[in-house]
Amino acid sequence: MAKHSISGFPEWLPAERIVEQHVTDCLRRVFELHGFVGLETRAVEPLSALEAKGETSKEVYLLQRLQSAREAAAVGMPTTEPASRALGLHFDLTVPLARYVLQNSNDLVFPLRRYQIQKVWRGERPQEGRFREFTQADVDVVGFQTLAFHHEVEAAQVMLEALDALGIGPVLMEVNNRKLLQALLTGGDKDEGATSVSLEDFAALLRVLDKYDKVGEEGVSSELTGLGISNSQIDLILRIARIQTSDPCELRQRVEDLGVQGEDIDEGLGELCSLLEGASRVAPGQVRASLRIARGLDYYTGSVYETIVPGFEEFGSICSGGRYDKLVSEGKRTYPGVGLSIGVSRLVSLILRERLLVPSRPTPTVVMVAVNDEESRANSETIATQLRRRGISTEVSSSAQKFGKQIRLAEKRGIPYVWFPGTAREPDAVKDIRTGEQTEANADLWMPPVEDLKPQVARP
Amino acid sequence: MAKHSISGFPEWLPAERIVEQHVTDCLRRVFELHGFVGLETRAVEPLSALEAKGETSKEVYLLQRLQSAREAAAVGMPTTEPASRALGLHFDLTVPLARYVLQNSNDLVFPLRRYQIQKVWRGERPQEGRFREFTQADVDVVGFQTLAFHHEVEAAQVMLEALDALGIGPVLMEVNNRKLLQALLTGGDKDEGATSVSLEDFAALLRVLDKYDKVGEEGVSSELTGLGISNSQIDLILRIARIQTSDPCELRQRVEDLGVQGEDIDEGLGELCSLLEGASRVAPGQVRASLRIARGLDYYTGSVYETIVPGFEEFGSICSGGRYDKLVSEGKRTYPGVGLSIGVSRLVSLILRERLLVPSRPTPTVVMVAVNDEESRANSETIATQLRRRGISTEVSSSAQKFGKQIRLAEKRGIPYVWFPGTAREPDAVKDIRTGEQTEANADLWMPPVEDLKPQVARP
Repeated sequence: MAKHSISGFPEWLPAERIVEQHVTDCLRRVFELHGFVGLETRAVEPLSALEAKGETSKEVYLLQRLQSAREAAAVGMPTTEPASRALGLHFDLTVPLARYVLQNSNDLVFPLRRYQIQKVWRGERPQEGRFREFTQADVDVVGFQTLAFHHEVEAAQVMLEALDALGIGPVLMEVNNRKLLQALLTGGDKDEGATSVSLEDFAALLRVLDKYDKVGEEGVSSELTGLGISNSQIDLILRIARIQTSDPCELRQRVEDLGVQGEDIDEGLGELCSLLEGASRVAPGQVRASLRIARGLDYYTGSVYETIVPGFEEFGSICSGGRYDKLVSEGKRTYPGVGLSIGVSRLVSLILRERLLVPSRPTPTVVMVAVNDEESRANSETIATQLRRRGISTEVSSSAQKFGKQIRLAEKRGIPYVWFPGTAREPDAVKDIRTGEQTEANADLWMPPVEDLKPQVARP
Repeated sequence: MAKHSISGFPEWLPAERIVEQHVTDCLRRVFELHGFVGLETRAVEPLSALEAKGETSKEVYLLQRLQSAREAAAVGMPTTEPASRALGLHFDLTVPLARYVLQNSNDLVFPLRRYQIQKVWRGERPQEGRFREFTQADVDVVGFQTLAFHHEVEAAQVMLEALDALGIGPVLMEVNNRKLLQALLTGGDKDEGATSVSLEDFAALLRVLDKYDKVGEEGVSSELTGLGISNSQIDLILRIARIQTSDPCELRQRVEDLGVQGEDIDEGLGELCSLLEGASRVAPGQVRASLRIARGLDYYTGSVYETIVPGFEEFGSICSGGRYDKLVSEGKRTYPGVGLSIGVSRLVSLILRERLLVPSRPTPTVVMVAVNDEESRANSETIATQLRRRGISTEVSSSAQKFGKQIRLAEKRGIPYVWFPGTAREPDAVKDIRTGEQTEANADLWMPPVEDLKPQVARP
């Protein structure tokens, strides 16, 4: 990894960056194949908008123009602007999307399918070992007034296909449904009253449930006791949390076995089964219902998703999201949506650390054209132009040293081929410096094997 | 354009964003064809690094974690961190490159060819009508200790090819050479002493010269008088500033006609002629030596470049840069470089405003698969998967309304084809909704015309 002089702000070396580009290129290709348009939003939002969602507000980076900071400091004034005017860097791509949709609703066609691959910033304390600047790749489908449930299946499908395209092997997407969870925990038939939890407790309960894999059943149990939840309720919650299955029939059976009934339960359960079936169609064996998946954020109202790389469970989720009914609304206009987000920088750091993917070379260059002498540099340039015209990435040697030295330079740069311009006596020749094989060649005709055309990023 | 709620932070609507993506895709493709690797650097740099270059320091956005700002404000303290710890958003991609190169020099191979397409931020006052957040696309070639002059030609060539790939028509790159300018203005044969300018005046003089096209000869003249420059010197400076030609022979003649001689002049003039010839080879008629091109920044030491779109001269330069001998150095290690930078957001705003390029549609989607009824949605999904597998961007209709309504929805979304899933009685069919032509089709075989595969971005 490139040396970080500022903790939490990752940068990559050329070979690593080629891996990151492979990741974002694959994601983009699949997103566009599914009809998602690639929007970008500005990096800043009004502080008021960033704080509206609670939770992450502490992590916001505020912006301040240096000049006004200095002017204020000179007179000993606090330099924090009034909250109404303050700008901060966005900490996710969902808040900006909500604002963008509202702002441009008359110029957008719904349902809007958009992807967004952009940097986000979180001013977390560096000791947490988290990135403070990182790239996210989001897909969202946003409707106007309504959004059919099948888009919750679509969002999972596009992300599963996108993750598959990376070539890191099968992932595991764990899904749940907030309606089901809420119905099981707060509703149910009233004669089962003892097992129901108040709506106020529900949000707190979700946050405890979210820690299940970290703190275990005992940890969850003691935290729930701390919330004043009764033992019989805790027992139900743990039975719910244990339900994990890829099989819709088994899912139905195990939910039924909980002994809680109600219409809301049927609706949530039906959606979860449909999601399981629909997502499994594009990624068989990679989707599992897990009723302990809660997702901390308040605004989810339907399907929720988390995705792990098997073997690296402790690394946490690489792709998460959910359905939200009212992320955006203005008067009587509401824009329900569903979205998933990949933490690209985190995922790339895992890929690099574990060598899940390696690049075939650290440069786009296929061919280095040697230079016979400085007087004939223009001739080498012409050859390079001929090769580039046919899509072959080419550079011209920086210096007209002896060919042996030029070859070693190409080797050092990771370039697979060196081209020797012909002379009056000899034709052009190209050498594969990995094998040493040298052949006569014509710059208007020669093509490298297709796997050499671009750096390949694949499992080692 | 998308509605801007914060002045200076541009955002695009889907169709506009497709134009921007076309621009960055074209640039990237050409940069990589020339062997440039696509690095990214973090958005923040220490304030001390951002201020080191003078000039732009006033435009820096400082960062501050919201929490610490609040804590400081609560006790009435100024919240500006000590300059040694303060972080600001980068205002260009050159300062970060310098720092990145120094930091990772042991892991890089020189000359390093890197391109970087990233957002930068400048906290300029909004009334100036400039963007405060915008995308830049930079190429730089950075050497270790030395960097041969031919890279100054290479940098111009790659940018001319990249700009050509956009399809906006021929641009005009104006080039000059700092060595030549400095030799003409501060040196020359000593018996022509009357025409020489002190080195201290040279920097101020460059800034005046830079305004030539804005303020005209009279404006330049009076500003130079204000600097205490003599009339005979001003006369020489104006004669220099009038030299503009695409012809190396004419250039040599007109410089000779100035009557100033010296070795430094020969060197600078030789480089400028080589640049003119080399750059014209890839873009005939698009390169011109213009001795009034000064570039404000102090650190240029050789070739300097500016690029205008003919017909939109008043819009200013869309691609500028130069050679710098010592942007980075540490002890005895120096990293000379040459780089050019395209103001992508500015260029895109010109392209959109003047309709230099328009997209064939506002979405990547080629085909919308209709849904016969909700029960058969999975069947429509399967067709979509078949099409996507062969690279055809496809979405499935959001609702199972009557076909007429589904066609109108596709039309509204700008999608050219609607696919009708077959039934027991009928085969699949695909309709080009622009022409109304409908044909039987097989989702494993059908291909749209190649120009429909992706949104085309071209002159209207």
